[in-house]
Amino acid sequence: MYRTHNCGELRIENLNTETTLSGWVQKVRNLGGMTFIDLRDRYGITQLTFNMEVDKDLCEKARKIGREYVIKITGNITERSNKNKNIATGDIEIDVKKLEILNASEVPPFTIEDKTDGGEEQRMQYRYLDLRRNPVKRGLILRHKMGQEIRKYLDTNGFIEVETPYLIKSTPEGARDFVVPSRMHKGSFYALPQSPQVFKQLLMISGYDKYFQIVKCFRDEDFRSDRQPEFTQIDCEMSFVEQEDVMNMFEGLAKHLFKEILNYEISYDFPVLSYDNCMENYGNDRPDIRFGMTIKNISELVKGQGFKIFDEAEYIGGICAENCGEYSRKMLDKLVSFVKRPQVGANGLIYVKYNKDGTLKSSVDKFYSSEELKKWADAMNAKPGDLLLVMSGEKAKTLSALSILRLEMADRLELRKTGTFAPLWVVDFPLLEKDEETGTFHAMHHPFTSPKNGKKDLENPKPEEIYANAYDLVINGHEIGGGSIRIHDTEMQAKMFELLGFTKEEADEQFGFLMNAFKYGAPPHGGAAFGFDRWVALFNNSDSIRDVIAFPKNNAGKDLMINSPSLLDQSQLKELNLEVTE
Amino acid sequence: MYRTHNCGELRIENLNTETTLSGWVQKVRNLGGMTFIDLRDRYGITQLTFNMEVDKDLCEKARKIGREYVIKITGNITERSNKNKNIATGDIEIDVKKLEILNASEVPPFTIEDKTDGGEEQRMQYRYLDLRRNPVKRGLILRHKMGQEIRKYLDTNGFIEVETPYLIKSTPEGARDFVVPSRMHKGSFYALPQSPQVFKQLLMISGYDKYFQIVKCFRDEDFRSDRQPEFTQIDCEMSFVEQEDVMNMFEGLAKHLFKEILNYEISYDFPVLSYDNCMENYGNDRPDIRFGMTIKNISELVKGQGFKIFDEAEYIGGICAENCGEYSRKMLDKLVSFVKRPQVGANGLIYVKYNKDGTLKSSVDKFYSSEELKKWADAMNAKPGDLLLVMSGEKAKTLSALSILRLEMADRLELRKTGTFAPLWVVDFPLLEKDEETGTFHAMHHPFTSPKNGKKDLENPKPEEIYANAYDLVINGHEIGGGSIRIHDTEMQAKMFELLGFTKEEADEQFGFLMNAFKYGAPPHGGAAFGFDRWVALFNNSDSIRDVIAFPKNNAGKDLMINSPSLLDQSQLKELNLEVTE
Repeated sequence: MYRTHNCGELRIENLNTETTLSGWVQKVRNLGGMTFIDLRDRYGITQLTFNMEVDKDLCEKARKIGREYVIKITGNITERSNKNKNIATGDIEIDVKKLEILNASEVPPFTIEDKTDGGEEQRMQYRYLDLRRNPVKRGLILRHKMGQEIRKYLDTNGFIEVETPYLIKSTPEGARDFVVPSRMHKGSFYALPQSPQVFKQLLMISGYDKYFQIVKCFRDEDFRSDRQPEFTQIDCEMSFVEQEDVMNMFEGLAKHLFKEILNYEISYDFPVLSYDNCMENYGNDRPDIRFGMTIKNISELVKGQGFKIFDEAEYIGGICAENCGEYSRKMLDKLVSFVKRPQVGANGLIYVKYNKDGTLKSSVDKFYSSEELKKWADAMNAKPGDLLLVMSGEKAKTLSALSILRLEMADRLELRKTGTFAPLWVVDFPLLEKDEETGTFHAMHHPFTSPKNGKKDLENPKPEEIYANAYDLVINGHEIGGGSIRIHDTEMQAKMFELLGFTKEEADEQFGFLMNAFKYGAPPHGGAAFGFDRWVALFNNSDSIRDVIAFPKNNAGKDLMINSPSLLDQSQLKELNLEVTE
Repeated sequence: MYRTHNCGELRIENLNTETTLSGWVQKVRNLGGMTFIDLRDRYGITQLTFNMEVDKDLCEKARKIGREYVIKITGNITERSNKNKNIATGDIEIDVKKLEILNASEVPPFTIEDKTDGGEEQRMQYRYLDLRRNPVKRGLILRHKMGQEIRKYLDTNGFIEVETPYLIKSTPEGARDFVVPSRMHKGSFYALPQSPQVFKQLLMISGYDKYFQIVKCFRDEDFRSDRQPEFTQIDCEMSFVEQEDVMNMFEGLAKHLFKEILNYEISYDFPVLSYDNCMENYGNDRPDIRFGMTIKNISELVKGQGFKIFDEAEYIGGICAENCGEYSRKMLDKLVSFVKRPQVGANGLIYVKYNKDGTLKSSVDKFYSSEELKKWADAMNAKPGDLLLVMSGEKAKTLSALSILRLEMADRLELRKTGTFAPLWVVDFPLLEKDEETGTFHAMHHPFTSPKNGKKDLENPKPEEIYANAYDLVINGHEIGGGSIRIHDTEMQAKMFELLGFTKEEADEQFGFLMNAFKYGAPPHGGAAFGFDRWVALFNNSDSIRDVIAFPKNNAGKDLMINSPSLLDQSQLKELNLEVTE
């Protein structure tokens, strides 16, 4: 037997009994005649003691042990004279009688500590050692718990988990598929699912009523930071529901997770904001509403005063940074540099200091009198001591830049507090996005989303103005997930494909089976999907989803530990009837 | 709102209140002035009534509705005069006041009934309709419940579910991988995992202690019946364990599932049989032990009596079929034909009838006296009225044929009773299998399985005689899963790869990261993996795993519903730098 207890469970109540423990050596300390070893496993750390005077051989054996050795010991549980309040087992230590080295360890390439000296790439290459570190371990245990609680909630609410296939069919629409050559059917390929969207709709047509799955999805994108080629989705679908039913169900899920995982009670209904509202007031469709500082459109107020930049701008808007009225010239210059960075892309920034004495000082004093500036301040609900930051230009771009500036100011003002959460629903998205270059339309969510007012919407001569029965769950500036009420009618689905520029043949070839399924009694249905990695990262207070994925890939889609992707044997290629082209 | 209740929940207690239901039309019956509709959803069936005299228009509307239409109705819950004891809602019916057709349905290509008129291929093509049938629905709901209970048991026992990657690295060893071309890394490929074996071992090295995952695995095999290119595994691993610890943990899981899912209590310890014992007594390593009829080796008894076939045979063995002594000539001839089929592959079959009067009559009376035959009967524990069936030849082949004959006789005697379960562990498997043609060795389980007596075993000059620390869970003749205690030592693992014919370079190229990981403190560990599809099929009393997979592929690996695999756009191939060869 390797152990009678784990390294995290012994307490003062266990004193004066014998125990056997196995684990990893976190640390060895030699203090005169005593040697101390911190023994670690998943559950905690227990201190072991060896006394030179009592057993010289044993103590010398212990002294030769290095970090990360795997050992098994037997000894008596004794009370520590020097209690350690930082660990759960801090009241006791083990007076070791027997010591067995189960496996030696070379010196690890970086320290297995909360703050390690290992660089990103090295930790990826030795991920199995990085996974030993507490912050990583905590993230994965949190992930496990969240998975369990999600399943518990959905099961209790009548959802059935159904596994949908991974080897499906490629559809050129949308992001790129990963494909899988078929050896048995020469020249044919499976594709890995970008989501189980079509299958979950088929399950509704099959009468499964409430479906869910925690499932891997795949997207062959040009990698951006914090994107993974494979990611995990909480995928759900319900029949005989309207938008409100779906939102209620998953608001319940979010509240359940907040409560069970973080012990964070949310007793109010999540606010519901329209897409247009979000764009106008926050500059994006996933606002962080832990703080106000909303964007104000002051176009009407500032035009026609002879300031050419404003007069020629499509849009002028600003935010009010509370209590920043005393920003120095240098700090303001830094802000200007910030918004001029390519990631923000603004041309400039105009400020108005609302001094504590009630006077106003701006970078456009030449064009605007104090009375005029006071009107801006009033429009932005500013009070003496505040700072107004104003930008202008093409509307969408300016709002986007203001949105980034708003978050930056909030960070400086420490308004985005860790451990505080402000969830909301964003609704009434546009159904379609117009590609201004080609004049064609893309589905904003996906081609199965229904228009808000049914069939007649699709006759709108300006399709970009149609709203969708779609909703997103946003928490602290992150889109955690979203969904829609789907089309469940062959004719409407055909019309939608037409709007998206599919020929009838293309629609049939790719989605014929779904359109066919609609003919045999499709119920009204809708659902949602949530980014599991992102949600866990949010709850784990991680910046990157990589922190909560056991074996993530790097930004180039590589697994540095197993060295993948890699070349195939020529014989494998031959069997697949494939050749790599020059 | 689409419904206030579902179609399975209304009872006599709900009488005289109003309800709104939505669902599918199972059946429409017109009886004089009354029309009855059976309305179906996932939860059950509710009878709707329409009365011509009360509301002619509504009743006529109802009469035009076809099977599988999706409708929404509102009406009063009334007591049925003609109660239906076969359904849970059989005491009530709905006196419909309002009827809305939510979606029409064409006549489905086959009937949505427990016993359908649809053929296999048609049902695969219209899987979304086949999924509406009760037997299929029951199987998938059972699957969901089993998944939940497995997670509950493992979570309670301290296991953490960790997701391992799907885009990994191809290893030529073992079955063929499905591969995934990388667009970003020209000429390189990912592979889909045949199992998360290596990753779960790395998680043990990372100190996760107890891991599990219910996970899809992929194997590009030439399809055999009841094999799927993608299948689901319950994958588990534990640290600081010996064989007995792992077996106890998963015997507990099996008992938990029997109890919670089937309400079938197993209070005894599962029998543990050695591989050699199973081969000798049952002719295979996954015996159905719901019945006896074990195989007896009578080689010693029957040789040297001048019967050339026996004298020249490596092995002679037989089984005793109880109470079959009165089999007619015709029935015996049929048995001979049965064993001569290519699937069994025997040359012939010798019988001895142990008549009720105590006399013996055999097909080899020329060579063996009654006294001799009586010895056979005693050796096989036969009693008057029984039938002895004897086969001879090369030992392994003969045992295999006897094993099939044993199951056939058990079926005839109805000894393999539905609803009865006889689980057991098979242990002490050979570590390696010798390829008699090439003289090379393959791992019987996989190359990470440890030998029973540690390092010294690997020095055995006859590697085929080494036993493994491996175990299988067998229920009713199905191998439900199995596992092993793994090697956790670089040197031993290297020696194992050597035995399997890997060069050092090949071992490094494919498993270098694992061997490297062993150097940094690998704990003793072991685990198991169970075929989830097979286990669900067993509990569902299904012959085929296809019955319990929502969207299975056919024997050619095709999904007939979505028509996959399929050809890619030339542009997709080009992006992947691939060409299909002639």
